[in-house]
Amino acid sequence: MNTDVLQKRIRLPELREKVTSPEAAAEYIKDGMKVGMSGFTLAGSVKSVPHAIVKRAATHPLKISVVTGASLGNDVDSAMANAGIMSKRAPFQTDRTLRNAINRGEVMYVDNHLSETGEQLRKQQVKKVDVAILEAVSITENGEIIPTASVGNNEIFAETADKVIIELNLSYPLEMEGAHDIYCATHFPTAVPINIMKPSDRAGSIGIRIPPEKIAAIVITDEMDTPSQNLPPDAETAQIAGHLIEFFKNEIKQGRLTESLRPLQAGIGTIANAVMSGLKTGPFKHLTMYSEVMQDSTFELIDAGMMDFAAATAITLSDQKSREVFGNFAKYKDHILLRPQRISNHPEVVQRLGLITINTALEVDIYGHVNSTHVMGTHMMNGIGGSGDFTHNAHTAIFVTKSVAKDGLISSIVPMVPHVDHTEHDVDILVTEVGLADLRGLAPRERAQAIINNCVQGEYKTMLQEYVAEANLRGGQTPHVLEKALSWHQRLYETGSMKDEVKLTQVA
Amino acid sequence: MNTDVLQKRIRLPELREKVTSPEAAAEYIKDGMKVGMSGFTLAGSVKSVPHAIVKRAATHPLKISVVTGASLGNDVDSAMANAGIMSKRAPFQTDRTLRNAINRGEVMYVDNHLSETGEQLRKQQVKKVDVAILEAVSITENGEIIPTASVGNNEIFAETADKVIIELNLSYPLEMEGAHDIYCATHFPTAVPINIMKPSDRAGSIGIRIPPEKIAAIVITDEMDTPSQNLPPDAETAQIAGHLIEFFKNEIKQGRLTESLRPLQAGIGTIANAVMSGLKTGPFKHLTMYSEVMQDSTFELIDAGMMDFAAATAITLSDQKSREVFGNFAKYKDHILLRPQRISNHPEVVQRLGLITINTALEVDIYGHVNSTHVMGTHMMNGIGGSGDFTHNAHTAIFVTKSVAKDGLISSIVPMVPHVDHTEHDVDILVTEVGLADLRGLAPRERAQAIINNCVQGEYKTMLQEYVAEANLRGGQTPHVLEKALSWHQRLYETGSMKDEVKLTQVA
Ligand SMILES: CC(C)(COP(=O)(O)OP(=O)(O)OC[C@H]1O[C@@H](n2cnc3c(N)ncnc32)[C@H](O)[C@@H]1OP(=O)(O)O)[C@@H](O)C(=O)NCCC(=O)NCCS
Ligand SMILES: CC(C)(COP(=O)(O)OP(=O)(O)OC[C@H]1O[C@@H](n2cnc3c(N)ncnc32)[C@H](O)[C@@H]1OP(=O)(O)O)[C@@H](O)C(=O)NCCC(=O)NCCS
Repeated sequence: MNTDVLQKRIRLPELREKVTSPEAAAEYIKDGMKVGMSGFTLAGSVKSVPHAIVKRAATHPLKISVVTGASLGNDVDSAMANAGIMSKRAPFQTDRTLRNAINRGEVMYVDNHLSETGEQLRKQQVKKVDVAILEAVSITENGEIIPTASVGNNEIFAETADKVIIELNLSYPLEMEGAHDIYCATHFPTAVPINIMKPSDRAGSIGIRIPPEKIAAIVITDEMDTPSQNLPPDAETAQIAGHLIEFFKNEIKQGRLTESLRPLQAGIGTIANAVMSGLKTGPFKHLTMYSEVMQDSTFELIDAGMMDFAAATAITLSDQKSREVFGNFAKYKDHILLRPQRISNHPEVVQRLGLITINTALEVDIYGHVNSTHVMGTHMMNGIGGSGDFTHNAHTAIFVTKSVAKDGLISSIVPMVPHVDHTEHDVDILVTEVGLADLRGLAPRERAQAIINNCVQGEYKTMLQEYVAEANLRGGQTPHVLEKALSWHQRLYETGSMKDEVKLTQVA
Repeated sequence: MNTDVLQKRIRLPELREKVTSPEAAAEYIKDGMKVGMSGFTLAGSVKSVPHAIVKRAATHPLKISVVTGASLGNDVDSAMANAGIMSKRAPFQTDRTLRNAINRGEVMYVDNHLSETGEQLRKQQVKKVDVAILEAVSITENGEIIPTASVGNNEIFAETADKVIIELNLSYPLEMEGAHDIYCATHFPTAVPINIMKPSDRAGSIGIRIPPEKIAAIVITDEMDTPSQNLPPDAETAQIAGHLIEFFKNEIKQGRLTESLRPLQAGIGTIANAVMSGLKTGPFKHLTMYSEVMQDSTFELIDAGMMDFAAATAITLSDQKSREVFGNFAKYKDHILLRPQRISNHPEVVQRLGLITINTALEVDIYGHVNSTHVMGTHMMNGIGGSGDFTHNAHTAIFVTKSVAKDGLISSIVPMVPHVDHTEHDVDILVTEVGLADLRGLAPRERAQAIINNCVQGEYKTMLQEYVAEANLRGGQTPHVLEKALSWHQRLYETGSMKDEVKLTQVA
């Protein structure tokens, strides 16, 4: 290890003595512990110590409870799941191996609102974190820990853990110092307002402040984050973006929005990213973002001169975009801030700023209840993430989805969702490639008409119209035919398709 | 009309000329209008002009859209529903006649989070209010309108309506002046923090400030609010309170709470009121309340010297308690504040104060998803009210319910709720007369065990255990047997009971 680099990256001399191997750091992790790890939607994930823990577990079996910002990258979740060392996992994941272990009931997965995980720790309502493992760009002369591409729950893990292990990642540019805004929300009983009136308001410090003696070990790494796996925009995501642009244009015309809209939040995944990217073709200016994750589309909008500022808790990019942004960080530094997820997702700030939120639904029912998480109502996909934090508190809460999945075998608009993450009270606008349903101010029976008429097509549209007609005969605020409400999912479970083959055959 | 009374109650002289009959005031209401009316859970309801509108509709047919704080008293909702003059109704009701009209699909009912209704008006996301009809104790020399037993959405109706009609109610004591805290939340794009750090912090003025020329008519009334219909505490509500007191005692012992707990919110209805009343037997001191409604139990706790301060948007009392409180208002004036529902229910303040919220569930499923509103998933009971505003943002979100309804024909704990108002992400504690399930930090499969083991008894317990065992065989994060998930409700629909008669016969 080059001492010059070490002196620049660890500027509090006494801490340089803590540099050690991943294997030695891993020894701090004991059976039964709760371990807090940095990482948010792949960004700023720990990369080294967890793999050393897994290796060690082969000879010294252990089970730990793992809590993070959100999903980890660099194969950490899959390695831990494969080794069977996780008894519990919170609050978000996107890993196929881990997901399968969760759905087999082997890992107890606690799917939290992402603004709440750290808060529960501070309130001592869940078991405390024993050891925190946090990725850092550097440690300043004052002992401030500078996070990397995500902040997540790092400041709360550092505050509440007994010991902290740092993974100092040399692959990030030192210029990242100053790109973070570490505001630690005050706590009961002395809570005060959060001093953020617009996305660019700095409220906190550039790094995480804890007593240096809490740092038990520092491990040096230089691996980059796993790049995001988002697929590129396609014809359908372009259509969704087109409907949204038309909607925004009309809101501007009606005087309800201006050409800078409201600060934007956009969810993770292919669809939300593609839709945001599609906004480039709209007549917008001076956009801002107050979100969880900056994705490729954020920097495309900044590059296009359409977005002035973006605040989030993580930067999750494709391989190519990552090189552009981190290779050229000075260009973007004045346009972004990374905050703790408690702040990026905080109901107080989301309410005050009045966000337009755009999240992706797995499926939606005719009344506008959204399932974001559970395939067939039972099997975990990723988790609710921040979608609840944002949707509950939005100025305008938008959900997007393609109208069908799996080549049309699945309709994303169903009579009743078998799992609800967002209730009709919280869903203002639904958009599919077919069109947009404006649900604001509508009663459930009116919502059903708006959704079926605007967002669905083909045989599923006919099937939903028939369902509603039959349900209405039974009456109610939110009419249903109980014995048929989940029949589409049962058919999918039994036949692999939601299509009503019997009826199709009869018709044929 | 005694001029002396009029001079005391309408202290801005020019407004005294606006005093008129209900019939004359009703002429301002035209077909197709949207009318904002004061009234929140029966309290501070308009009492006179709506009945004049109904009378007039007999000869001059009209349809109006009615938006309120919450439920109206004094037969206003039933009279309007019976006359068929409401095309639309928002955001809450508790009236049997209206409920039936809603469930027949005759009135489009928009069931809002109560913190959001006014906000949607200010954002112009729903049709504007044409005329506001607001009950008042008095109008000051500055033209400030002093509300009566509720504030609700009055300040927003007054701000956004073209015309305002006042119902000046002489049955309220003039001493109520000063008991209201009318803080109008600032609005996009200039929103600033709400200056409330504890329930007793005054943030606004004593009355509603609008240009006096907006007041089109003043009608004099002297009818009291409809008293609340809450049933008295019974053995089961005492058991629920007992379980809660044990839970709080343990939280205090663990250092997570102090003997003043956190500011309390309690929902409407018999059960929440009885449970709050039951807290009198606990070891608590210096309690405070930050809630929607003060009920009898609030004043019992104040009288018992256990509660220092209560803030809400409405005072809804039994006949007897109402006489005590309004007949002796000076005694309570320093212990209470009435605020707009946008503020009493505001996510920012609820988060900052860290409330313990206690709301009643109609039914809950084994994973802790709560149905607060829809009997059988389809038929509206009352509405979600503020339960979402509080539950999403609580320090500790508690739901209470008796374990069975209708003499045991209905289990309040079911495999899957057919309507979700509060998702498992938001529900921390569930209490029935059987016991308490602490769901904090648990994954869904663990939640199911906690709920079934602690909150259910008898044959329903066995039936739920069998359901879970079968569901677990199918796997998933949240296992279900889709074709049986709603079978209990189907059985109720078909046989009038959730009991598994076939199985009972087999066993016998
Ligand atoms: C809902 C979510 C999974 C969609 O992700 P996406 O990448 O935009 O969407 P895709 O259409 O590519 O769908 C992802 C997968 O779900 C499948 N899918 C989509 N709709 C489905 C449905 N109704 N039923 C079953 N599977 C479905 C797709 O086929 C695809 O499967 P594959 O991975 O096997 O190809 C993702 O947005 C998510 O996890 N959301 C919850 C968290 C969240 O909203 N966070 C926001 C704050 S950051
Ligand atoms: C859920 C709610 C209806 C319970 O009211 P309550 O008066 O405490 O409870 P009760 O047990 O007396 O139940 C009220 C009625 O619902 C019925 N009921 C209760 N559980 C039921 C179930 N699972 N299925 C069908 N009916 C049920 C009761 O039998 C009773 O019927 P009745 O009026 O014909 O006698 C009421 O709390 C509510 O409307 N909540 C939603 C709004 C809210 O939570 N606001 C909170 C912020 S103020």
